[in-house]
Amino acid sequence: MQKGKASIEFETPPRICGAASIVGEKEGQGPLGPFFDRVETDPMLGCKNWEEAESALQKKTADLVIEKAGTSRKQIRYMFSGDLLGQLIATSFGTVDLEIPLFGLYGACSTMGEALCLGAMTVAAGYADQVLSMASSHFASAEKQFRFPLEYGNQRPYSATWTVTGCGAVILGCQGEIAKITGVTVGKIVDMGLKDSMNMGACMAPAATDLILQNLRDFERTPEDYDQIITGDLGQVGRQILMDFTKSKGADLTGRHTDCGIRIFDEEEQDTHAGGSGCGCSATVLSAYILPKIQSGEWKRVLFVPTGALLSSTSFNEGQSVPGIAHGVVIEHIGKEG
Amino acid sequence: MQKGKASIEFETPPRICGAASIVGEKEGQGPLGPFFDRVETDPMLGCKNWEEAESALQKKTADLVIEKAGTSRKQIRYMFSGDLLGQLIATSFGTVDLEIPLFGLYGACSTMGEALCLGAMTVAAGYADQVLSMASSHFASAEKQFRFPLEYGNQRPYSATWTVTGCGAVILGCQGEIAKITGVTVGKIVDMGLKDSMNMGACMAPAATDLILQNLRDFERTPEDYDQIITGDLGQVGRQILMDFTKSKGADLTGRHTDCGIRIFDEEEQDTHAGGSGCGCSATVLSAYILPKIQSGEWKRVLFVPTGALLSSTSFNEGQSVPGIAHGVVIEHIGKEG
Repeated sequence: MQKGKASIEFETPPRICGAASIVGEKEGQGPLGPFFDRVETDPMLGCKNWEEAESALQKKTADLVIEKAGTSRKQIRYMFSGDLLGQLIATSFGTVDLEIPLFGLYGACSTMGEALCLGAMTVAAGYADQVLSMASSHFASAEKQFRFPLEYGNQRPYSATWTVTGCGAVILGCQGEIAKITGVTVGKIVDMGLKDSMNMGACMAPAATDLILQNLRDFERTPEDYDQIITGDLGQVGRQILMDFTKSKGADLTGRHTDCGIRIFDEEEQDTHAGGSGCGCSATVLSAYILPKIQSGEWKRVLFVPTGALLSSTSFNEGQSVPGIAHGVVIEHIGKEG
Repeated sequence: MQKGKASIEFETPPRICGAASIVGEKEGQGPLGPFFDRVETDPMLGCKNWEEAESALQKKTADLVIEKAGTSRKQIRYMFSGDLLGQLIATSFGTVDLEIPLFGLYGACSTMGEALCLGAMTVAAGYADQVLSMASSHFASAEKQFRFPLEYGNQRPYSATWTVTGCGAVILGCQGEIAKITGVTVGKIVDMGLKDSMNMGACMAPAATDLILQNLRDFERTPEDYDQIITGDLGQVGRQILMDFTKSKGADLTGRHTDCGIRIFDEEEQDTHAGGSGCGCSATVLSAYILPKIQSGEWKRVLFVPTGALLSSTSFNEGQSVPGIAHGVVIEHIGKEG
């Protein structure tokens, strides 16, 4: 059912019936380390190059989530997946063996939000009994794609984030015990003209603000209606901007906001500066940390808002700005009444 | 309603209520030249670089299709769009001013198929009254992204295709006179290990074969149930493989198959070798050539199958194969009975 200007409320909310996360060694050493399903200590995952390593992450995570959900490849009707690399090569080569019809998605680091929105819409409409939504990133393939060769050892400003090596996946279906998706809010691109690719948190904060305010308007809610509002990878700098922007618009998120990028690394110990980022950041934190808290009932209703910075090395070198986009997913505890 | 293994049949088929196409000069000089809405004689579209020119194509085409459909930006609830460039920069910078919630898609040259599938699913489920589905490509931005600098003047083998400069867009809605989408078939990645990026038709033909056979099985149809089965950009080489493969599987497409890439350029006069390609190829041919024939009733039922070759210069240089993907959209004439 259409809700407000950009949202959908599901009359029969799709269920999350499986969730899995596989991360790299640095993520495994972070505060959420114990919660991930698997920590890969070899950053190459036994492959010949970084891109193939990221593909291997997707393949392993997809297989794991299918196993954890007690289902099979054949029962997954459609797959929604994406990554940060040009032409989505991590996804293409990571999912080919699954032989599941694929919708390839690109929303920069908001991709898990896009995959959950479309997956939930597909299940709720009865188009599929089970779908798989997934997103990945890899520190080294992202550095190669967007920034400097690792061997160059360049200095990073304190506003920079560290791309998470990891893949998160969920299976959505008509049945499932983990949580339910009651609504989604689809984001639009917001460009405030910022051009600093080493401060992506600031570039994405306006889009996150826009999405959260749109969600509150569309569902006629206040921040208090959510136990948590969790952004993807704004990091320390972007988070502060989000808090200021939303407060100035009358929505005070104090005490109920957190950010996957801030949670995944230890600020003092791990030297990642503003926090973690990448499609894999919000996707793995969702699977490993957010969903268990919703399943247990510690959080009854969460607004999950993966955030993306839309840039390429080409657009950046041509002097373009770095616009942001964010998508929102309302995830709720399944009470006794279902 | 789920149909077979990978398809959906719509109980209330979404209507196509607007279609637009803008192409470059070479496309304007081809056999379909008179049918496109607009031919841009400046390949830069007044911009500073190729990527911005492609963004301008998307922006102009979106505005044009909204105007032609007699609607407004505010009435378009969601947009499904994509292109070939790394991180979809043509789409990001081309659609930012529209301020419409965006699902960014990547399916290589199959993107228009993906955008139509998701757009139709969204409208048919009642999630939106109007959506915009769009895809673009630009010869020069694609050459820069995937092949050689234009200045290098490299030789192209006869199996190579020529990336179309163009953007096609349609508006799907509950009402509309142009045509109706009665079903979709979502494709999976098919990799037969081919590695020749200068013969993308051969790389995509197995995926097109797989999609068409899946569609026929899912809907319990034979090729004779379609007036035309129209692939995206297989070109001359890929088309022959498709004809052979499908025939060997018991589905003879003789007399009812054509390919947008073969139609858009004149084989004798325009020296494009195997034909046209790029997301913009099938998208513009759909808007300018296929839909009018369906609207007039010359064709009652068409299976539209945009085809994509999944590669990047990175994966290619790392020795990866070029897998294919294709998505199918069943488009039908709106008879007197509706």
